[in-house]
Amino acid sequence: MPAERSRPAIHVCITCNRAETPVPLDARPGRRLYEAVAALAQTRALDCDVRPVECMAQCSRSCTVAFSSLDKWSYIFGDLDPDIEGTADAVLACLDIQASDEDGLIRLGRRPPQIRKGLLARIPPFRPER
Amino acid sequence: MPAERSRPAIHVCITCNRAETPVPLDARPGRRLYEAVAALAQTRALDCDVRPVECMAQCSRSCTVAFSSLDKWSYIFGDLDPDIEGTADAVLACLDIQASDEDGLIRLGRRPPQIRKGLLARIPPFRPER
Repeated sequence: MPAERSRPAIHVCITCNRAETPVPLDARPGRRLYEAVAALAQTRALDCDVRPVECMAQCSRSCTVAFSSLDKWSYIFGDLDPDIEGTADAVLACLDIQASDEDGLIRLGRRPPQIRKGLLARIPPFRPER
Repeated sequence: MPAERSRPAIHVCITCNRAETPVPLDARPGRRLYEAVAALAQTRALDCDVRPVECMAQCSRSCTVAFSSLDKWSYIFGDLDPDIEGTADAVLACLDIQASDEDGLIRLGRRPPQIRKGLLARIPPFRPER
Protein backbone atom coordinates (compact mmCIF):
# COMPACT_ATOMS: atom_id res chain seq x y z
CA MET A 1 0.00 0.00 0.00
CA PRO A 2 1.48 3.40 -0.93
CA ALA A 3 2.31 5.54 2.10
CA GLU A 4 -0.19 8.25 1.17
CA ARG A 5 -3.00 5.73 1.39
CA SER A 6 -2.34 4.98 5.03
CA ARG A 7 -2.27 8.59 6.26
CA PRO A 8 -4.92 9.42 8.86
CA ALA A 9 -7.98 11.16 7.47
CA ILE A 10 -10.18 13.94 8.83
CA HIS A 11 -13.56 14.07 7.11
CA VAL A 12 -15.37 17.40 7.38
CA CYS A 13 -18.97 17.67 6.20
CA ILE A 14 -19.23 20.66 3.86
CA THR A 15 -23.04 20.61 3.71
CA CYS A 16 -23.51 21.00 7.48
CA ASN A 17 -25.67 24.00 8.34
CA ARG A 18 -26.08 25.25 11.89
CA ALA A 19 -29.00 27.61 11.17
CA GLU A 20 -32.51 26.68 10.14
CA THR A 21 -32.46 29.41 7.53
CA PRO A 22 -31.15 28.47 4.08
CA VAL A 23 -27.48 29.20 3.49
CA PRO A 24 -25.81 28.86 0.06
CA LEU A 25 -23.69 25.71 -0.18
CA ASP A 26 -20.44 27.63 -0.59
CA ALA A 27 -21.05 29.62 2.61
CA ARG A 28 -22.25 26.81 4.86
CA PRO A 29 -20.59 26.58 8.28
CA GLY A 30 -19.45 23.09 7.34
CA ARG A 31 -17.71 24.40 4.25
CA ARG A 32 -16.02 27.13 6.29
CA LEU A 33 -14.92 24.62 8.92
CA TYR A 34 -13.47 22.37 6.23
CA GLU A 35 -11.53 25.26 4.71
CA ALA A 36 -10.20 26.36 8.10
CA VAL A 37 -9.06 22.85 9.06
CA ALA A 38 -7.53 22.18 5.63
CA ALA A 39 -5.67 25.51 5.65
CA LEU A 40 -4.31 24.96 9.15
CA ALA A 41 -3.19 21.42 8.32
CA GLN A 42 -1.44 22.73 5.22
CA THR A 43 0.25 25.54 7.15
CA ARG A 44 1.58 23.02 9.62
CA ALA A 45 2.49 20.54 6.84
CA LEU A 46 0.68 17.80 8.76
CA ASP A 47 0.85 14.22 7.54
CA CYS A 48 -2.90 13.77 7.15
CA ASP A 49 -5.69 14.08 4.60
CA VAL A 50 -8.41 16.65 5.27
CA ARG A 51 -11.30 15.57 3.09
CA PRO A 52 -14.59 17.26 2.28
CA VAL A 53 -17.64 15.00 2.55
CA GLU A 54 -21.30 15.57 1.79
CA CYS A 55 -23.36 14.37 4.75
CA MET A 56 -22.49 11.95 7.50
CA ALA A 57 -26.15 11.64 8.59
CA GLN A 58 -25.95 13.77 11.72
CA CYS A 59 -27.43 16.99 10.31
CA SER A 60 -29.16 17.83 13.60
CA ARG A 61 -25.75 17.94 15.28
CA SER A 62 -23.92 20.16 12.74
CA CYS A 63 -21.09 20.82 12.14
CA THR A 64 -19.65 17.33 12.03
CA VAL A 65 -16.15 15.88 11.61
CA ALA A 66 -14.92 12.28 11.56
CA PHE A 67 -11.50 10.77 12.12
CA SER A 68 -10.29 7.54 10.57
CA SER A 69 -6.90 5.90 10.66
CA LEU A 70 -5.71 2.48 9.63
CA ASP A 71 -6.24 -0.06 12.42
CA LYS A 72 -7.66 2.52 14.84
CA TRP A 73 -11.10 3.42 16.14
CA SER A 74 -13.11 5.81 13.94
CA TYR A 75 -14.78 8.76 15.65
CA ILE A 76 -17.48 11.21 14.64
CA PHE A 77 -18.06 14.47 16.49
CA GLY A 78 -20.79 17.10 16.10
CA ASP A 79 -21.92 20.49 17.42
CA LEU A 80 -18.79 22.16 16.10
CA ASP A 81 -18.92 25.87 15.31
CA PRO A 82 -16.34 27.37 12.94
CA ASP A 83 -17.08 30.80 14.45
CA ILE A 84 -15.78 29.74 17.87
CA GLU A 85 -12.10 30.58 18.20
CA GLY A 86 -9.76 27.64 18.13
CA THR A 87 -12.19 25.16 16.59
CA ALA A 88 -9.99 24.18 13.64
CA ASP A 89 -7.07 23.85 16.03
CA ALA A 90 -9.17 21.63 18.31
CA VAL A 91 -9.98 19.34 15.39
CA LEU A 92 -6.30 18.93 14.56
CA ALA A 93 -5.50 18.35 18.24
CA CYS A 94 -7.74 15.26 18.13
CA LEU A 95 -5.57 13.92 15.35
CA ASP A 96 -2.56 14.09 17.66
CA ILE A 97 -4.51 12.48 20.49
CA GLN A 98 -5.57 9.63 18.21
CA ALA A 99 -2.06 9.17 16.85
CA SER A 100 -0.60 8.93 20.35
CA ASP A 101 -2.97 6.15 21.43
CA GLU A 102 -2.24 2.65 20.15
CA ASP A 103 -5.91 1.93 19.50
CA GLY A 104 -6.68 5.45 18.39
CA LEU A 105 -8.87 6.30 21.38
CA ILE A 106 -9.78 9.98 21.76
CA ARG A 107 -10.57 10.04 25.46
CA LEU A 108 -12.89 12.65 26.95
CA GLY A 109 -10.32 14.09 29.32
CA ARG A 110 -7.85 14.78 26.53
CA ARG A 111 -10.24 16.53 24.13
CA PRO A 112 -10.06 20.31 23.68
CA PRO A 113 -13.13 22.18 25.01
CA GLN A 114 -14.46 23.06 21.53
CA ILE A 115 -15.01 19.36 20.78
CA ARG A 116 -15.27 17.80 24.23
CA LYS A 117 -19.02 17.18 24.43
CA GLY A 118 -19.67 16.53 20.77
CA LEU A 119 -19.00 12.80 20.56
CA LEU A 120 -21.65 11.25 18.32
CA ALA A 121 -20.33 7.75 17.79
CA ARG A 122 -17.21 5.63 17.53
CA ILE A 123 -16.65 2.51 15.46
CA PRO A 124 -14.01 -0.15 16.19
CA PRO A 125 -11.00 -0.63 13.92
CA PHE A 126 -11.87 -2.53 10.78
CA ARG A 127 -8.97 -4.91 11.32
CA PRO A 128 -8.68 -5.98 14.94
CA GLU A 129 -5.41 -7.85 14.48
CA ARG A 130 -2.12 -6.05 14.37
CA MET B 1 -3.12 -8.78 3.47
CA PRO B 2 -4.56 -12.20 4.46
CA ALA B 3 -8.07 -12.78 3.13
CA GLU B 4 -9.63 -13.04 6.58
CA ARG B 5 -8.46 -9.54 7.39
CA SER B 6 -10.46 -8.00 4.56
CA ARG B 7 -13.81 -9.64 5.36
CA PRO B 8 -16.61 -7.21 6.15
CA ALA B 9 -17.25 -6.71 9.84
CA ILE B 10 -20.43 -6.25 11.84
CA HIS B 11 -19.78 -4.72 15.26
CA VAL B 12 -22.51 -5.33 17.83
CA CYS B 13 -22.38 -3.51 21.17
CA ILE B 14 -22.80 -6.09 23.93
CA THR B 15 -23.20 -3.51 26.70
CA CYS B 16 -26.24 -1.80 25.11
CA ASN B 17 -29.20 -1.71 27.48
CA ARG B 18 -32.66 -0.65 26.33
CA ALA B 19 -34.17 -0.35 29.81
CA GLU B 20 -33.33 2.17 32.51
CA THR B 21 -33.32 -0.58 35.09
CA PRO B 22 -30.02 -2.38 35.66
CA VAL B 23 -29.58 -5.59 33.69
CA PRO B 24 -26.67 -7.99 34.26
CA LEU B 25 -24.03 -7.71 31.53
CA ASP B 26 -24.59 -11.25 30.27
CA ALA B 27 -28.32 -10.61 29.79
CA ARG B 28 -28.15 -7.19 28.16
CA PRO B 29 -30.22 -6.74 25.00
CA GLY B 30 -26.98 -5.88 23.17
CA ARG B 31 -25.44 -9.17 24.24
CA ARG B 32 -28.53 -11.06 23.08
CA LEU B 33 -28.52 -9.21 19.75
CA TYR B 34 -24.84 -10.04 19.26
CA GLU B 35 -25.46 -13.72 19.96
CA ALA B 36 -28.44 -13.82 17.60
CA VAL B 37 -26.56 -12.14 14.75
CA ALA B 38 -23.44 -14.26 15.27
CA ALA B 39 -25.48 -17.49 15.37
CA LEU B 40 -27.40 -16.61 12.22
CA ALA B 41 -24.21 -15.66 10.37
CA GLN B 42 -22.65 -18.95 11.40
CA THR B 43 -25.71 -20.95 10.34
CA ARG B 44 -25.54 -19.32 6.93
CA ALA B 45 -21.73 -19.65 6.77
CA LEU B 46 -21.48 -16.00 5.81
CA ASP B 47 -18.12 -14.54 4.82
CA CYS B 48 -18.07 -11.87 7.51
CA ASP B 49 -16.89 -11.22 11.06
CA VAL B 50 -19.50 -10.58 13.72
CA ARG B 51 -17.60 -8.89 16.53
CA PRO B 52 -18.68 -7.97 20.05
CA VAL B 53 -17.75 -4.43 21.09
CA GLU B 54 -18.11 -2.58 24.38
CA CYS B 55 -19.70 0.81 23.69
CA MET B 56 -19.87 2.82 20.49
CA ALA B 57 -20.96 5.99 22.37
CA GLN B 58 -24.62 5.93 21.39
CA CYS B 59 -26.05 4.47 24.61
CA SER B 60 -29.22 6.57 24.38
CA ARG B 61 -30.01 4.88 21.07
CA SER B 62 -29.45 1.24 22.13
CA CYS B 63 -29.09 -1.35 20.73
CA THR B 64 -26.40 -0.36 18.27
CA VAL B 65 -24.60 -2.08 15.40
CA ALA B 66 -21.93 -0.83 12.99
CA PHE B 67 -20.80 -2.07 9.59
CA SER B 68 -17.29 -1.66 8.22
CA SER B 69 -15.75 -2.99 5.04
CA LEU B 70 -12.49 -2.24 3.30
CA ASP B 71 -12.80 0.81 1.05
CA LYS B 72 -16.51 1.28 1.81
CA TRP B 73 -18.54 3.70 3.93
CA SER B 74 -18.93 2.72 7.60
CA TYR B 75 -22.39 2.88 9.11
CA ILE B 76 -23.74 2.87 12.64
CA PHE B 77 -27.38 2.14 13.44
CA GLY B 78 -29.29 2.30 16.71
CA ASP B 79 -32.72 1.67 18.24
CA LEU B 80 -32.49 -2.04 17.47
CA ASP B 81 -34.49 -4.46 19.59
CA PRO B 82 -33.47 -8.12 19.71
CA ASP B 83 -36.99 -8.98 20.85
CA ILE B 84 -38.52 -7.79 17.59
CA GLU B 85 -38.83 -10.67 15.14
CA GLY B 86 -36.40 -10.59 12.26
CA THR B 87 -33.96 -8.12 13.78
CA ALA B 88 -30.87 -10.33 13.42
CA ASP B 89 -31.94 -11.11 9.87
CA ALA B 90 -32.33 -7.38 9.16
CA VAL B 91 -28.78 -6.73 10.38
CA LEU B 92 -27.39 -9.38 8.03
CA ALA B 93 -29.50 -8.01 5.17
CA CYS B 94 -27.62 -4.71 5.51
CA LEU B 95 -24.41 -6.61 4.93
CA ASP B 96 -25.75 -7.79 1.57
CA ILE B 97 -26.94 -4.29 0.70
CA GLN B 98 -23.51 -2.89 1.49
CA ALA B 99 -21.70 -5.60 -0.44
CA SER B 100 -23.82 -4.97 -3.54
CA ASP B 101 -23.01 -1.24 -3.63
CA GLU B 102 -19.59 -0.24 -4.93
CA ASP B 103 -19.19 2.45 -2.27
CA GLY B 104 -20.92 0.43 0.41
CA LEU B 105 -23.95 2.71 0.67
CA ILE B 106 -26.88 1.33 2.68
CA ARG B 107 -29.67 3.44 1.21
CA LEU B 108 -32.85 4.14 3.15
CA GLY B 109 -35.17 2.54 0.61
CA ARG B 110 -33.31 -0.76 0.72
CA ARG B 111 -33.14 -1.17 4.50
CA PRO B 112 -35.37 -3.70 6.26
CA PRO B 113 -38.04 -2.12 8.49
CA GLN B 114 -36.37 -3.21 11.74
CA ILE B 115 -33.36 -0.99 10.98
CA ARG B 116 -34.79 1.60 8.58
CA LYS B 117 -35.05 4.61 10.87
CA GLY B 118 -32.08 3.87 13.07
CA LEU B 119 -29.27 5.51 11.12
CA LEU B 120 -26.99 7.29 13.59
CA ALA B 121 -24.02 8.21 11.42
CA ARG B 122 -21.94 7.19 8.45
CA ILE B 123 -18.23 7.76 7.86
CA PRO B 124 -16.55 7.81 4.43
CA PRO B 125 -14.17 5.06 3.34
CA PHE B 126 -10.75 5.40 4.89
CA ARG B 127 -9.05 5.03 1.53
CA PRO B 128 -10.80 7.06 -1.16
CA GLU B 129 -8.74 5.72 -4.04
CA ARG B 130 -9.46 2.38 -5.60
